Amino acid sequence: MKISKLVGKRVKETPNNATIKSHILLLRAGYIKQVGAGIFSLLPPAQRVSLKIQKIIREEMNKIGGQEVLFPVVMPRELWDMSGRYSSIKEEMVRFKDRTGHDMLLGMTHEEAAVHMMMNTATSHEDLPVMIYQIQTKFRDEARPRGGLIRVREFTMKDAYSFHTSQEDLDVYYKKVYDTYIRIYKRLGFKNFVVVEGDNGIMGGKVSHEYMEVTDVGEDSLVICPKCGYSSNMEVAVSVKDENDHTIAGEKEEVFTGNAHTIEEVCKFLEIDAKHTAKAVCYKTATDGKLVIAFLRGDHEINESKLAKQVKSELEAVDVEEEFSLPAGNIGMLNLNVPEGSHIFFDLSLKGLENLVTGANKKDFHIKNVSMTRDLPDVNYVDISLVKQGEKCVRCGETLNLTRGIEIGNIFQLGTKYTKAMGMKVNMPDGSAKEPIMGCYGIGIGRCLASIVEEKADDKGLIWPMTIAPWQVYLCPLRLDNENVSAIADELYKKMEEAGMEVLFDDRNVSAGIKLTDSELMGMPIRVVISPKTLSNGTAEVTMRGNEKEPLFIPIGELIPELKVMIQDEIDDIEEYANGKNN
Amino acid sequence: MKISKLVGKRVKETPNNATIKSHILLLRAGYIKQVGAGIFSLLPPAQRVSLKIQKIIREEMNKIGGQEVLFPVVMPRELWDMSGRYSSIKEEMVRFKDRTGHDMLLGMTHEEAAVHMMMNTATSHEDLPVMIYQIQTKFRDEARPRGGLIRVREFTMKDAYSFHTSQEDLDVYYKKVYDTYIRIYKRLGFKNFVVVEGDNGIMGGKVSHEYMEVTDVGEDSLVICPKCGYSSNMEVAVSVKDENDHTIAGEKEEVFTGNAHTIEEVCKFLEIDAKHTAKAVCYKTATDGKLVIAFLRGDHEINESKLAKQVKSELEAVDVEEEFSLPAGNIGMLNLNVPEGSHIFFDLSLKGLENLVTGANKKDFHIKNVSMTRDLPDVNYVDISLVKQGEKCVRCGETLNLTRGIEIGNIFQLGTKYTKAMGMKVNMPDGSAKEPIMGCYGIGIGRCLASIVEEKADDKGLIWPMTIAPWQVYLCPLRLDNENVSAIADELYKKMEEAGMEVLFDDRNVSAGIKLTDSELMGMPIRVVISPKTLSNGTAEVTMRGNEKEPLFIPIGELIPELKVMIQDEIDDIEEYANGKNN
Repeated sequence: MKISKLVGKRVKETPNNATIKSHILLLRAGYIKQVGAGIFSLLPPAQRVSLKIQKIIREEMNKIGGQEVLFPVVMPRELWDMSGRYSSIKEEMVRFKDRTGHDMLLGMTHEEAAVHMMMNTATSHEDLPVMIYQIQTKFRDEARPRGGLIRVREFTMKDAYSFHTSQEDLDVYYKKVYDTYIRIYKRLGFKNFVVVEGDNGIMGGKVSHEYMEVTDVGEDSLVICPKCGYSSNMEVAVSVKDENDHTIAGEKEEVFTGNAHTIEEVCKFLEIDAKHTAKAVCYKTATDGKLVIAFLRGDHEINESKLAKQVKSELEAVDVEEEFSLPAGNIGMLNLNVPEGSHIFFDLSLKGLENLVTGANKKDFHIKNVSMTRDLPDVNYVDISLVKQGEKCVRCGETLNLTRGIEIGNIFQLGTKYTKAMGMKVNMPDGSAKEPIMGCYGIGIGRCLASIVEEKADDKGLIWPMTIAPWQVYLCPLRLDNENVSAIADELYKKMEEAGMEVLFDDRNVSAGIKLTDSELMGMPIRVVISPKTLSNGTAEVTMRGNEKEPLFIPIGELIPELKVMIQDEIDDIEEYANGKNN
Repeated sequence: MKISKLVGKRVKETPNNATIKSHILLLRAGYIKQVGAGIFSLLPPAQRVSLKIQKIIREEMNKIGGQEVLFPVVMPRELWDMSGRYSSIKEEMVRFKDRTGHDMLLGMTHEEAAVHMMMNTATSHEDLPVMIYQIQTKFRDEARPRGGLIRVREFTMKDAYSFHTSQEDLDVYYKKVYDTYIRIYKRLGFKNFVVVEGDNGIMGGKVSHEYMEVTDVGEDSLVICPKCGYSSNMEVAVSVKDENDHTIAGEKEEVFTGNAHTIEEVCKFLEIDAKHTAKAVCYKTATDGKLVIAFLRGDHEINESKLAKQVKSELEAVDVEEEFSLPAGNIGMLNLNVPEGSHIFFDLSLKGLENLVTGANKKDFHIKNVSMTRDLPDVNYVDISLVKQGEKCVRCGETLNLTRGIEIGNIFQLGTKYTKAMGMKVNMPDGSAKEPIMGCYGIGIGRCLASIVEEKADDKGLIWPMTIAPWQVYLCPLRLDNENVSAIADELYKKMEEAGMEVLFDDRNVSAGIKLTDSELMGMPIRVVISPKTLSNGTAEVTMRGNEKEPLFIPIGELIPELKVMIQDEIDDIEEYANGKNN
């Protein structure tokens, strides 16, 4: 490809509204262009990366028996009514009426379509296990698209669905996909990723894992044990809570706290530490508007995902004074007067504590010296707080690391939620009919592309792993007005293409500065510079992107075979890493 | 691939609602499954064909400098407001509001997105010509989806857009794409297709061509000259009208025709031939409701596409009595009293005619002996009738053939409609700024898949060309309960895969009848049968699909190399045909 004809311009300036590395660089290097909020076009270099990512994913999915199919983007309501998700998924799902007035939707995920395909297709236990997958466009109407390709509304996704006759069979296959995903990310060039226990969200089911690229710009909070490997999304992470005061409580005592409402204010007013308080966090259920109050130690934060699971409903903000006549800022664990059907929870962080300050359920007052064991002996403690910095691993006791990550893939055990809802059964050897147990497995292509940029790129530009680089070589002749340079550049370009290399040929007659800067911005793994100076020694200057300080000077006559070796070495390194030989 | 695990079941029965060959066979052979009206899932065999079609298209588009990109399926209204198509395209385009209330749409085509990508990307004449293309999902809310994959609402399409600084440059490139398309269809295995002049419809622009698979089940009417190669979509086809009565007219005379209103009734009543009448066909314009009357010879039919172009509006049905107080069935060319702004047209078929019968514009009466030259000397004749069987080629005078076809692709010269509307300009050498001239080029993947079935399949099932077959070989051991058969089959399967062949292995222990029938239904190009009988001679029976009557018996030891030669020969034949060496 000649850069003079390549669609996409490089720009120097950091684009407006772009704050994270991958977003800035992909825009600046001419890889993507925004069409709307969370909607992008891919220019040729990005589409080349995307196709290479897809190819690797296909190879790996096929290796574990995956059969590629294609589901529709647009589906009729009926299919999603069967699973109940037509109504349970809110505004994230796009709905519209077709010209006949029929309710249609844009698929956010394809469990229903997968079961629809397998119904009457797999009818016997002998037809299972089976895994089908597709690579297709999805649209999710995200409330807050951000970060370029990191969180978009429209994206290309590989989604896969497996069907099994027993939990054991699913477990075996799930592990296979688990390992295959690791191989996929390694082949794409990822090094800095972890697998964490995940939250199942709208998918249903119990076991799930998320593949997380560890990076400060990630939206997800992760909890990782550096010793035993325990790793989890914060939404479902557990921990050993830190030590606290378990000395016997004094007498309960109501104290005036006036306008001190937040934990900070109360602690300041009473001159105590937040860990000696029990705070109340209030919501209402999205399903039926019931009051939800969670009590937790004052220095802990509520984990809304866990709390939502306790009440089996999304949570909404509540104005407790307006809606439930409760004294906001003074709500406490004792003498709490709430309507029937309200949900009251006590977090594990409170277990066994003494001498706590809590609201008095009375304007301007708190109560001191509350004892969980003496005053609330019958409480059922649940885990509804976020893991805190400094807490210990429940498995090995090591201090946990808190970090952030981008979810680059996920795998779920779905159980029989969809097959049962849609009435899919297979005949078993004993003559009975059984709903197959499903797994589902997703990878967002564009998010992988952006995440690898987050991991690799430097302050000069993109750095692509050899396996997914748009082109392997950036051929960069300087001084194309020099006839010798021009003739040799043309010949090298021709020979490189004939040798099967993927070459981006900078055929512009512009300054060396522009060319070298662009080569770094665009990120091809190998750069070949020829100039009157290098040619005076009969060589080309070859550098690896990210390692420009260590050039090799290779005689022109040996260049093509040398480059072939370098390319293959890079690929071999990545493949060996993926095969676990150098882990 | 082992057929026991292949997703998709073969069925004997013709499915309900399926009437055409490709629809019936693709359903019966387990290639597709319907999800909604005009919406299908592709099962693994169909997806394999689709990917092979895409690969060939990519190769050919890349050869002529195409750069692959990806546009979004969902676009914001603003982009389509710029071209005016947000309002000009009617219910075929899906519109919806996103969660913020923003107007969004599903792309039916991507001219706007292509210009959006090129704006500020190609800024100089030196950046052009350039062609970008994508392979992506489209949704068009067709009023009458039908025929399986022939006319669907959701489909995968290759759409390409080229940008040029002059009409001459577009003409040169357009011809390149024209030829490339012929190569593509030939490589896909098509033999029975023609290129016809097309109608530009909603795309704008002037020159266009349609690639038509010639088949009785096609929705389009085609006009083809068997001598000089003139070929056209009926919508825009022209012809030399047949001879007629040009003798001098007698005196005009009003005659009572009573309830005779249609041309057939009037002719019967007056005992004359339809070619001696002038009939009126009435519409109103969709844009502003003006009356449109087209007069044409009684034995000709109106060409609504041509008429719509004359009035620059879609046409709607009209009740002339109710809405315009005209005597339906008695409307004629003389003394016609219509509101100002009405459109009156006279078809070429009436030119120079004498002694015509036409309505008297008076209930129950017609007029005889009307002379076009004497009574309507100032008429401007236009071409608004369909080409009729028996009419002659305007180029060479040969009698034209009328036939039907499926549109498998199209190419358009768009002019500057979109670049002008969206304000895209490039700097020219003389310092001026110019709107680039565009071409656009489409191929529907699924429709190609179904059309090749229409061309090739026989009454037993599908027949795939080697270049796009899901698998090249159907390995069909009979009597798998026989240990010798079973062992040799397993070994052959392994060796074939090792040799890089694509093999569908019928590993089921079912009757020979089921296996042979399924092999014919599924349509792989080569079938290899082994059985106790063939093995007793040390051979396998090899047949080509569609030519089962001429089996080859090949010694097992020579089978693999022989099959490799057969596969390569088939591919070579198709490639040679595509390269024009055996045309």
